Amino acid sequence: MEKFNTYVEANAERFIEELKEFCRQPSIAAQGIGLEEMAELVRARLDKLGAEVRLIPVDDGPPVVYGELGDGQRTLLIYDHYDVQPPDPLDLWEFEPFDPQVREGKIYARGVADNKGNLLARVQAVEAYRATLGELPLKVKWVIEGEEEVGSPHLASFAAEHAALLTADGCLWEAGQKDESERPTISLGLKGIMYLELKAHGAKSDLHSALATIVPNPAWRLVWALSTLKDENDNILVDGLMDHVAEPTAAEMGMLAAIPFEEEKMRARFGIPHFIRGLTGVEALKKHLFEPTCTICGFKAGYIEEGAKTVLPSTAMVKLDFRLVPNLEPDLVVRLLRQHLDRRGFADIEVVPTHGGHSAKTPFDAPIVKAAIAAVHTVYGQDPVVYPLMAGSGPMYPLTQALGTPAFSTGIGYAGSSAHAPNENIRLKDYFEGIRFVGELIRRFGT
Amino acid sequence: MEKFNTYVEANAERFIEELKEFCRQPSIAAQGIGLEEMAELVRARLDKLGAEVRLIPVDDGPPVVYGELGDGQRTLLIYDHYDVQPPDPLDLWEFEPFDPQVREGKIYARGVADNKGNLLARVQAVEAYRATLGELPLKVKWVIEGEEEVGSPHLASFAAEHAALLTADGCLWEAGQKDESERPTISLGLKGIMYLELKAHGAKSDLHSALATIVPNPAWRLVWALSTLKDENDNILVDGLMDHVAEPTAAEMGMLAAIPFEEEKMRARFGIPHFIRGLTGVEALKKHLFEPTCTICGFKAGYIEEGAKTVLPSTAMVKLDFRLVPNLEPDLVVRLLRQHLDRRGFADIEVVPTHGGHSAKTPFDAPIVKAAIAAVHTVYGQDPVVYPLMAGSGPMYPLTQALGTPAFSTGIGYAGSSAHAPNENIRLKDYFEGIRFVGELIRRFGT
Repeated sequence: MEKFNTYVEANAERFIEELKEFCRQPSIAAQGIGLEEMAELVRARLDKLGAEVRLIPVDDGPPVVYGELGDGQRTLLIYDHYDVQPPDPLDLWEFEPFDPQVREGKIYARGVADNKGNLLARVQAVEAYRATLGELPLKVKWVIEGEEEVGSPHLASFAAEHAALLTADGCLWEAGQKDESERPTISLGLKGIMYLELKAHGAKSDLHSALATIVPNPAWRLVWALSTLKDENDNILVDGLMDHVAEPTAAEMGMLAAIPFEEEKMRARFGIPHFIRGLTGVEALKKHLFEPTCTICGFKAGYIEEGAKTVLPSTAMVKLDFRLVPNLEPDLVVRLLRQHLDRRGFADIEVVPTHGGHSAKTPFDAPIVKAAIAAVHTVYGQDPVVYPLMAGSGPMYPLTQALGTPAFSTGIGYAGSSAHAPNENIRLKDYFEGIRFVGELIRRFGT
Repeated sequence: MEKFNTYVEANAERFIEELKEFCRQPSIAAQGIGLEEMAELVRARLDKLGAEVRLIPVDDGPPVVYGELGDGQRTLLIYDHYDVQPPDPLDLWEFEPFDPQVREGKIYARGVADNKGNLLARVQAVEAYRATLGELPLKVKWVIEGEEEVGSPHLASFAAEHAALLTADGCLWEAGQKDESERPTISLGLKGIMYLELKAHGAKSDLHSALATIVPNPAWRLVWALSTLKDENDNILVDGLMDHVAEPTAAEMGMLAAIPFEEEKMRARFGIPHFIRGLTGVEALKKHLFEPTCTICGFKAGYIEEGAKTVLPSTAMVKLDFRLVPNLEPDLVVRLLRQHLDRRGFADIEVVPTHGGHSAKTPFDAPIVKAAIAAVHTVYGQDPVVYPLMAGSGPMYPLTQALGTPAFSTGIGYAGSSAHAPNENIRLKDYFEGIRFVGELIRRFGT
């Protein structure tokens, strides 16, 4: 790989220019800004690389960029996204979010860590591979979508419709980062999600709160219902839900024990004295990665501005986010919740699903994982920290596990990358290491 | 009173013109609009009447209009307010809210029912009395404030500072209305109030909801705390609070039994199948008038717009309104609530008082009440429905009961007056009856 590395060094300036060009194009899925333009930039870059590439339309959404290049016994699927989070709050940025700036070895821009840097590093790695080592030893397939930051609403149906295009022997998932102690990480799966709203109704319009003596209050209805869903010790009480939660295997507990968990730094960063239940160490990590959640993401009722308004609200709404471990299917959660509420006299409370997604889990001994660990060792000179699961969610299940493809996630971020936050940035050194890692992964997985 | 009535008829057109002039002047306390101008209009009208009148400043607020006229053994205090509710939502008004229109015997304008109609009817009654029956048989004192619609924040300190100006033998309180069956009503008191906020805090900024496994959620903290304050059967559980709630006396239960309670019309208007606990009749009325409330007026946490945002909120806030019966002091409620929360491990939840006010209660056998009942009988040809208490609140206690003055409330509204709502209106017939009632009250209370 000597020649590969030399090529990357020789082309470093152009590679960074290409990354800046990608970051200059706003592509904000939540606001529908610049998505078509960004899809075209990505298509053109893959075309320039020599890939067979096309834009595949999805209903009411920006297109998926699909590309293929190379041939071999194995196929590597690469999943990335070309959309980014909104840049707000703008006043906390040191530079313009869509005017990339390099400062002291870092490049600042919205999307540079999540996910344009990874997207492009992988393309440039293929370029370097072919320029120095010859044709690819495997087939690479790219699926690059434009709606990841809004929950990938079309990706499950895209995957079902285009299953034949997606068959692969392993998948490199979108992102990852070095941890607080500069150790590279890889993740073997992610949690599922069921996001829904509960709605309660009282009188047909807001009333003077003097009437609260006799007219039902939907905000109280929600409080009473919610208090049956989770206790003060953070135990989820939805009837039957925890029966579907498996204990981690011995192998998984082994992985947890090997994760260097920087919990004090984490608590300091969040400004909290303790984790829930006062958990520490591997017990905290176990809850974090192997237990589901039931989270109030939003609660709205009545008058919420400054000062006092003596109002009896006519409606109340709560947004709940359940993060799901394997076996806990999104639809099952909705069903269990409905039954739970009905049993307790809360049949009046509406359950309105917003979106759901399955968890995904790749076996530790899958060939793609072995190749990834070996490639990390070669490029970074140390073993990766292996997370059996990420606590977040994403469309990994329909795109990979449902089709029998093992997947893992890693990327060019670091602990200070501020993805989804102002001053998002990556370090140039991590970026070039990331390119070398992808070259090494291709070499090892292809042979 | 024949001559009095003839005078009112002869001057009807001018009286309505004066009312329109008052209603043309916006005077919105919540928005600080037009209050000085309105105070001056009121001062000028009392001056024209022949009263000794002045504007008494209050800290940071619009002035109180204070007036005196007449002499006699007794003094009648009249309390009104010259401010009005904001007119929103504007698009539901048939006419401009500050361009009064007469249609089919009704006059439409913001404030015409609450409280400019009552304010002016009482002034015009005094004018008619003096024009036809000679000097007043008692002293009338007016206290007309400009902040009733925002909770009269300065009236308690005003009353304490100017106690000598406020001594009286009886007080005619600001407003009231005929009920759904056209029966005149009077009320002998009102509930107190304690409005406050509960605030809970989690991490120092909003986080990705994947972290809800281990980072505490302030919205859940509030839900758990709230669920200890009131049960699903609407029983207030705050430690010790209900010990301060007295059962109504036999006389009060007698008054309740005499109130024709149009509960089916009420439920239909609110669009609810049942009252709380399925209460009906006198039991519903008893809870409505003699029990305190603990009402969620507002609840805000996290993301409350359309769609899904997977956020773990850093703060959560609820606005609570306690309506208070006699013996339940506002400060006591705050103290009991704080102790209740501390005892249950919710010391982290802030209790932030917004404003409080005492309940007030006038004995049924007070001379002013006897005079009022007799005057109703004379003018309306029937006995009034007597409410021992209103379920609402107001500054009655510091202005009257604290100074030993019995007070009652009545007014020129009807069941369709839409106070605080679009298309606020009164019927001209009720207006002139209201003027006659005040003349009759003065005659009976003064002799």
